[in-house]
Amino acid sequence: MTDDDIAGFFARRGDLDPDAYLELDFDFECAGDPRAAAAHLCSEQSTAQWHRIGIDEDFRPRFAARVVELEVSPRPAGFSLPVTCAASGPVHACRATIAHPHGNFGPRLPNLLSAVGGEGVFFAPGIPLIRLQDIRFPDAYLAAFEGPRFGLAGLRERLNAHGRPIFFGVIKPNIGLPPDAFAALGYQAWLGGLDIAKDDEMLADMAWCPLAERAALLGQAARQAARETGAPKLYLANVTDEVDRMPALHDEAVAAGAGAVLANAMPVGLSGARMLRRHATVPLIAHFPFIAAFSRVPMHGVHSRVMTRLQRLAGFDAVIMPGFGPRMMTPEQEVLDCVHACLDSMGPIKPVLPVPGGSDSAATLETVFRKVGHVDFGFVPGRGVFGHPMGPRGGAASIRQAWDAIATGTPVRDHAARHAELAAALQAFGTP
Amino acid sequence: MTDDDIAGFFARRGDLDPDAYLELDFDFECAGDPRAAAAHLCSEQSTAQWHRIGIDEDFRPRFAARVVELEVSPRPAGFSLPVTCAASGPVHACRATIAHPHGNFGPRLPNLLSAVGGEGVFFAPGIPLIRLQDIRFPDAYLAAFEGPRFGLAGLRERLNAHGRPIFFGVIKPNIGLPPDAFAALGYQAWLGGLDIAKDDEMLADMAWCPLAERAALLGQAARQAARETGAPKLYLANVTDEVDRMPALHDEAVAAGAGAVLANAMPVGLSGARMLRRHATVPLIAHFPFIAAFSRVPMHGVHSRVMTRLQRLAGFDAVIMPGFGPRMMTPEQEVLDCVHACLDSMGPIKPVLPVPGGSDSAATLETVFRKVGHVDFGFVPGRGVFGHPMGPRGGAASIRQAWDAIATGTPVRDHAARHAELAAALQAFGTP
Repeated sequence: MTDDDIAGFFARRGDLDPDAYLELDFDFECAGDPRAAAAHLCSEQSTAQWHRIGIDEDFRPRFAARVVELEVSPRPAGFSLPVTCAASGPVHACRATIAHPHGNFGPRLPNLLSAVGGEGVFFAPGIPLIRLQDIRFPDAYLAAFEGPRFGLAGLRERLNAHGRPIFFGVIKPNIGLPPDAFAALGYQAWLGGLDIAKDDEMLADMAWCPLAERAALLGQAARQAARETGAPKLYLANVTDEVDRMPALHDEAVAAGAGAVLANAMPVGLSGARMLRRHATVPLIAHFPFIAAFSRVPMHGVHSRVMTRLQRLAGFDAVIMPGFGPRMMTPEQEVLDCVHACLDSMGPIKPVLPVPGGSDSAATLETVFRKVGHVDFGFVPGRGVFGHPMGPRGGAASIRQAWDAIATGTPVRDHAARHAELAAALQAFGTP
Repeated sequence: MTDDDIAGFFARRGDLDPDAYLELDFDFECAGDPRAAAAHLCSEQSTAQWHRIGIDEDFRPRFAARVVELEVSPRPAGFSLPVTCAASGPVHACRATIAHPHGNFGPRLPNLLSAVGGEGVFFAPGIPLIRLQDIRFPDAYLAAFEGPRFGLAGLRERLNAHGRPIFFGVIKPNIGLPPDAFAALGYQAWLGGLDIAKDDEMLADMAWCPLAERAALLGQAARQAARETGAPKLYLANVTDEVDRMPALHDEAVAAGAGAVLANAMPVGLSGARMLRRHATVPLIAHFPFIAAFSRVPMHGVHSRVMTRLQRLAGFDAVIMPGFGPRMMTPEQEVLDCVHACLDSMGPIKPVLPVPGGSDSAATLETVFRKVGHVDFGFVPGRGVFGHPMGPRGGAASIRQAWDAIATGTPVRDHAARHAELAAALQAFGTP
């Protein structure tokens, strides 16, 4: 590129129509001139060849992505990882914000992903390491998406659960139980105080535990538990399957008694999830398989908060995500970023319930609550409910007892002195 | 886990029914006891809690993943990347082969991905860095997939192109041209010798270039070029869109004149691609957006050859992948691994055409051919055809002239002395 070519891929934010552009925050490491690298990053993700041979035309004014911010700092030690790269010259770490015209591809998730996480981004000359850190959409773009049907408020209403976290539990053993035994565990956990008993994200519609049979028994158990406790209870059925089978699985599960459905967002694809959203009549919950493959390494890939935003855009009402603590290998700030991405303002797209999870129990609830800083989250133990020494009813009760303590300002350990289930949970799952 | 628990997740390969297990090759770095880490990796991806509280049962014999090979070497310097991890103790680099019972989830791509690339793999205690290096399927599992309808042989037959590479070209400018101008470029390139003129992977069905109109004009141009040259010509239409719209887009494009359709495998989801395969009547070509987000860093994520295998399994007839040379930032062995993953034996699943691409032209054809080592590949220039100084007809001709030289054992530079298009290509795109 000439200096003029490079300049053609830079713009002042104020000179661009804000309704026409997405904003993308990238961190990258490049070899050679950082301004040239940033210009290539724009050209590769939009219009890398902006005129025909021998014809005086320029597609850049309408179709080019533009650098609107660029910060550069030298890395005298070179790239932070061993990488293959054609460019030579001094290495820099850069932070760039790029305005990308969404009119290049429209309000379609696969085409959005192809533009902001495709060849143009990951194969820009001179940039072997790059991470999409965040994405912002103008309302004009968001308006073309359905977004969540229920969202946080709708989910609370369905559960008649206000002013407190939503209590989920992953029925365990997750793989291997037949439907009747599986439903019996869910029933006990609902009696103990769970709002939502859920399938593990790996549990499919298998001959050894068919979804229709599972949903019928769990639906019945949820209704029974609701009658006994006076509180709504939901069975969250995993309908993750080939995308062309998910709508029928949803219908089967809901007809049988499921009150919400789970889909693994990356494995079914964000577009498969959006298809399910257009069809579904109950809340949709996302789970996080595969995301850590491209979000864990700090200097490459895609930040998990971008995926949270995209799951919200696809129409999920709640997003299960890796939670706090070193067990889940996710930095605390990243968990908080994902929690905020569920709740912050996103034009016409409703806020959704963040569910930071992983090895939780009555012993971790207070920490999670303090870190999140408010009650708008879901809490999703597995073993903490279903591996509780007094069984799932005791396990669920221990969670609710822990919450009662937190909500009334009683130290959880003091409360445990008067509540056997909580005491057993702290003993089994707490740090000594 | 106790020592007994750990031993329960190890097995001798010969003791397992080979039809019942996938084999997964992982490289990982762990803190603490490597055998315990490998056992956790198995338990987390299969049955992490294998009995109910207070009940004497064991789901492991049928449902547990098992370590069948484990090599361990110490890493005294610790993890190769800064990571968050709860486990402590000495760090080891490990290479493990794990047998995973596919009866846990069945022949469904989203459930397969959730099991082999999900929470169980990327959140196994003590293993913050892990890379799925390869995957092998028993024929009993593969038999449940449709696989490619045409495959390499079917594609060659459609094109009547044997004993040579298949010549693709990405019409450029990729973004911004209206259908008539776009079709005029494709027509010229076909006359010059291209087999397949294709949409860029970022080009969608947009008001400024509607797919139906584009396909009608390019279909007409392909038929015209076929009549003039006596050789079949295909227009490859990008139908990447929301998955519930792809079947209709396929129908529209094919009715108008597209001879094959392109889908971006990760953005539409592998399952979305399989849905398209069940519907499609023409060859399906995959493109590679998003894969580098999780395949570039050598110590984490998923190797791109795994994704090649999965794209083949989903039913693509050709897989476009990052090609040779430092411009595409992909180690040469990785490109070869992906090429082989298209062609090697995969039970009932047909071989498919590998298309290693990126900044190609007549100047790179010989290198690509020598590296691949045979003619079963696709060659896919963009600028090398459409940015040729003599226009796309000259650009396509230069590719065919380069191939003529290679096929007859003539040095390409000598052949260029007698062929103006080839000479111009070497001048414009070759290394001086």
